Amino acid sequence: MEDDFRLQNAKIVIVGLGLMGGSLALALRGKCAALYGLDTNQATLELALDQGIVDRADSDPALLSALPPVDLVILAVPVPRIIDLIQNLPSFIANACIVFDLGSTKRDILQAMLTLPQRFEPIGGHPVCGKERLGLANADRNLYEAAPFVVTPLERTTRRAKSAVVQIISAIGAHLIEMTAEEHDRILATTSHLPFLLASALAHSTSQEFSALIGSGFRSTSRVAGTPSHMMMGVLQTNRENILTALQSLCNSLKEIESALREENYIQLESLLNHSRSSYQALVNH
Amino acid sequence: MEDDFRLQNAKIVIVGLGLMGGSLALALRGKCAALYGLDTNQATLELALDQGIVDRADSDPALLSALPPVDLVILAVPVPRIIDLIQNLPSFIANACIVFDLGSTKRDILQAMLTLPQRFEPIGGHPVCGKERLGLANADRNLYEAAPFVVTPLERTTRRAKSAVVQIISAIGAHLIEMTAEEHDRILATTSHLPFLLASALAHSTSQEFSALIGSGFRSTSRVAGTPSHMMMGVLQTNRENILTALQSLCNSLKEIESALREENYIQLESLLNHSRSSYQALVNH
Repeated sequence: MEDDFRLQNAKIVIVGLGLMGGSLALALRGKCAALYGLDTNQATLELALDQGIVDRADSDPALLSALPPVDLVILAVPVPRIIDLIQNLPSFIANACIVFDLGSTKRDILQAMLTLPQRFEPIGGHPVCGKERLGLANADRNLYEAAPFVVTPLERTTRRAKSAVVQIISAIGAHLIEMTAEEHDRILATTSHLPFLLASALAHSTSQEFSALIGSGFRSTSRVAGTPSHMMMGVLQTNRENILTALQSLCNSLKEIESALREENYIQLESLLNHSRSSYQALVNH
Repeated sequence: MEDDFRLQNAKIVIVGLGLMGGSLALALRGKCAALYGLDTNQATLELALDQGIVDRADSDPALLSALPPVDLVILAVPVPRIIDLIQNLPSFIANACIVFDLGSTKRDILQAMLTLPQRFEPIGGHPVCGKERLGLANADRNLYEAAPFVVTPLERTTRRAKSAVVQIISAIGAHLIEMTAEEHDRILATTSHLPFLLASALAHSTSQEFSALIGSGFRSTSRVAGTPSHMMMGVLQTNRENILTALQSLCNSLKEIESALREENYIQLESLLNHSRSSYQALVNH
């Protein structure tokens, strides 16, 4: 292992070749020395090897002991599996290496990273992009292009680990934003986890009899309700308090709008809607 | 005026050359005998004439008295203005003609249509499509393509008026759905007006400090909050009771999700989210 991290010389293993890990592999292809993949799904492994998305792939971490030591391991599985993997990392990676993750919540993952033996150099990350259709078949080399990519260092994060993620994020065209795990989780509760619950509630409360009159507005507002719940359960569990706070704030806004409409206070209603529209425009045009 | 309505022989006036009226004019161009436009906005009139979107256009309804009698008037302005226009129609159209509207709610508009003198042949309509950017500059000849187009006849609606809207809807590639005004307003409260209020509440409750971490999920869920409130106020006012009922049902779903999360009842939470996802998929894949 060199003192400085150089992406073009790095041997990288991505654990989890789904939408996020697979898209990262596609975006990193040709920009590092070697790219290995681990995935428990046999069809995913075959697709990854058939299409040359990684140089080697297996379901068994023992693959790594048969190869030259990796410089960097990237954990690209759902949050609860990242936490499990961190606990088991010392048993399947014998050498020193940087540990980076793409998990959607950060506090619990960073807590798990604290327990890693000193030969590991951990740093947390979360790319704010995705699609509601998951899996390697939907992977896209441009998924990360221009997307915000949050990096959450630990106290023990080395200069070298930081340099590695800076190089990776630059190589895939994303936009690095550094913050604490707590700040990340608080903000994402509102900007990501709340929209998922809102879209789900909208789909939940809409009768199937109304399907002929679904327009582009409903389609857009409910779109993220299509995200598989197995992806979201770990997110909701590990960011529960922040999400409950965000839900409370949303319900207050909804109640203000509802009261103005119920009381036919249309001046107040229009003022609330104008504020919402300005807020929307400022948020999305940032 | 012939006994049968034939689109290719029809002289049509569209009142309101915004996104909906302008897109309709573009889609009907070359498919009728003459297309006239009325709009109070001078820039819109100039654009419509410059681009040949209509054959004649003016802000003054007196234009119509200088032209051969029109067979069909299409009201493509916000709901409260449609109601005003219906009340004033007898003063600026002297001949017999079919009256069709594109308003987003139907009950109050049909009530106004009931008061029209017998020479008018009214029928209500509502194309379930649109964009959050309004105005003739955003008009699109394909806006109506494959979109649901609700038609709400009155008791007095003639066979000829019905034939006229069937021909128009077919000519612009939309999909005709006939129902009562009451049924329309009840369904649209959930499939259109509710998503607007939800998106608005989400934008309203989100701090501007979070703008760097807005991803595609938030963007999609909040998109319709960008709709100008002056377009929506008349809709909310004329469909208030149905929207309040839909809001109540949405809040119940949100409360169920919130309780399961608060009580860490993750089996219940996952089951709710799975139901939401199935509902979403069935609704949008209809």
